[in-house]
Amino acid sequence: MASFMDVHSGFVGVTAQQLCEAHDRDLAIESEEGVHFERAWLDPEAGKVFCLSTGPSKEAIMRIHERAGHPTAEVYEVSVDVA
Amino acid sequence: MASFMDVHSGFVGVTAQQLCEAHDRDLAIESEEGVHFERAWLDPEAGKVFCLSTGPSKEAIMRIHERAGHPTAEVYEVSVDVA
Repeated sequence: MASFMDVHSGFVGVTAQQLCEAHDRDLAIESEEGVHFERAWLDPEAGKVFCLSTGPSKEAIMRIHERAGHPTAEVYEVSVDVA
Repeated sequence: MASFMDVHSGFVGVTAQQLCEAHDRDLAIESEEGVHFERAWLDPEAGKVFCLSTGPSKEAIMRIHERAGHPTAEVYEVSVDVA
């Protein structure tokens, strides 16, 4: 199982509730691809969203996001992390 | 105290140890700006690094990263998050 960070643009003015609803749409179907979305962060002024997830492949992440209505081609496999 | 996600490019082929060393250089001086770098994720193939931090301002984050030797202009204030 690998970890991924993906990036969405164009979410200017999105609210906390709207982010939650979008995240819930991912959670509702993620198991069909063996994916789990752990966290998401939003900058509503810049319109950027960052999602941290685990899953079998970049393509699996992309398929869930696309089916949930917020596709992105910008998915990074973050194989190294520090805390 | 606000939360930030910043993005670095050009870190192709960077190792886990090199990421740790870079992160440690931030940690060594971060308190001088009231900043704390919580986590960092690296995609060594794409050369992307994402850092999650807290601090008083975007500029404070940028000053620590610059002094630590890895400046970036791409810092987002992530005022909303879900988990």
